[in-house]
Amino acid sequence: MVLLSGGMDSCVCAALAARDHQAAAVHVSYGQRTEERERRSFESICDRLEIRDRLLVRNEALRAIGGSALTDPTIAVPEDHGVGASLPAVGIPVTYVPFRNAHFLAVAVSWAEVLGAEKVYIGAVEPDSSGYPDCRPEYYRAFNEVVKVGTKDGTIRVVTPLIAMHKHEIVTLGLELGAPFDLTWSCYQREDRACGVCDSCVLRRRAFRDAGAEDPISYAEAAARLS
Amino acid sequence: MVLLSGGMDSCVCAALAARDHQAAAVHVSYGQRTEERERRSFESICDRLEIRDRLLVRNEALRAIGGSALTDPTIAVPEDHGVGASLPAVGIPVTYVPFRNAHFLAVAVSWAEVLGAEKVYIGAVEPDSSGYPDCRPEYYRAFNEVVKVGTKDGTIRVVTPLIAMHKHEIVTLGLELGAPFDLTWSCYQREDRACGVCDSCVLRRRAFRDAGAEDPISYAEAAARLS
Repeated sequence: MVLLSGGMDSCVCAALAARDHQAAAVHVSYGQRTEERERRSFESICDRLEIRDRLLVRNEALRAIGGSALTDPTIAVPEDHGVGASLPAVGIPVTYVPFRNAHFLAVAVSWAEVLGAEKVYIGAVEPDSSGYPDCRPEYYRAFNEVVKVGTKDGTIRVVTPLIAMHKHEIVTLGLELGAPFDLTWSCYQREDRACGVCDSCVLRRRAFRDAGAEDPISYAEAAARLS
Repeated sequence: MVLLSGGMDSCVCAALAARDHQAAAVHVSYGQRTEERERRSFESICDRLEIRDRLLVRNEALRAIGGSALTDPTIAVPEDHGVGASLPAVGIPVTYVPFRNAHFLAVAVSWAEVLGAEKVYIGAVEPDSSGYPDCRPEYYRAFNEVVKVGTKDGTIRVVTPLIAMHKHEIVTLGLELGAPFDLTWSCYQREDRACGVCDSCVLRRRAFRDAGAEDPISYAEAAARLS
């Protein structure tokens, strides 16, 4: 079982899962700005990786609750036009969706119980990422304890194969695995063409640059000076 | 913040929360058989307890995933017509909804982060209950660790004031608090009138009997011999 948002990290994670197992994939849309586009990426990545068992569900709660630039249209997505990092030096950015990954993991673990899957892959990444509290190893250690005591057999495990990797290493790994980066979507705010300047686009472009690789998608705004 | 399904335990929990705090209430419907009826109970219990902040959301995933008599119409709800306990002596009954409470807690904790609530009350009960793994104290200890490391401030706590109580003690406490039992809904399978013979009805009737109290709701089938 792999949680596949359609972004570059989860795509590499899905490629890993599909290489080692007969994989099933879950996608949760939650009223985020780029919901439709991410859903298309999920489907096409599954097609390319030949993952047949798919679960696509909508989560109504995260949008209703808001509190994030990704789910509340009145909070702007921060941009970095080359004059400095848009991510705050300390603290958690406004793109943090409160306790989001618990919603996703709950869906994946419930389905894993019914399907009899043993592992839930999630492409959480700590270094070079946005500082979200639910992307840290201690979060997954704690969550695995919940899974162990809160499921029928207690045998399902959440695995985070990318968690300690730098983004450029993830690009390199993905290229080795043949992960379909051309089908992924990372941009937080646009669905027609990636903006190139939101946190997520900036982190992705930097990752491809540092890996010495070409990003197969195109951007609306050229990145003159990625810091 | 209180998770309020509309059943007797969560109603007592809400009465406790409303006595001690300016409470907000969350209800998650998930395609369970008695969805509409429970939603009505939620609204009327909130009205009676004067809880104004309410969040009602639908969870699409649990129904899509199935695997339980509560969410899959092809799996029958077990009944006890007085000839013996319908609950299995060992093991987890078919009314167990895989990893359900994690979905509910995720919603409550996300909303608590946005509202700034400090506590999330949930009416989980271990003794005399159905043996669900997500109703045990160790589950909530583990979940609180996830909340601590996976939220912005790490200050929210999930509290389970009823977890060690017997059902008849919950009835007694509810009567002391003036919990509106007349508005609650416990039946797993009917929405017009409680069946009286599903696990949940049987546990409830036994609880009122053992508390020496009268259950204010009526049942379709008389309980001649509650074991």
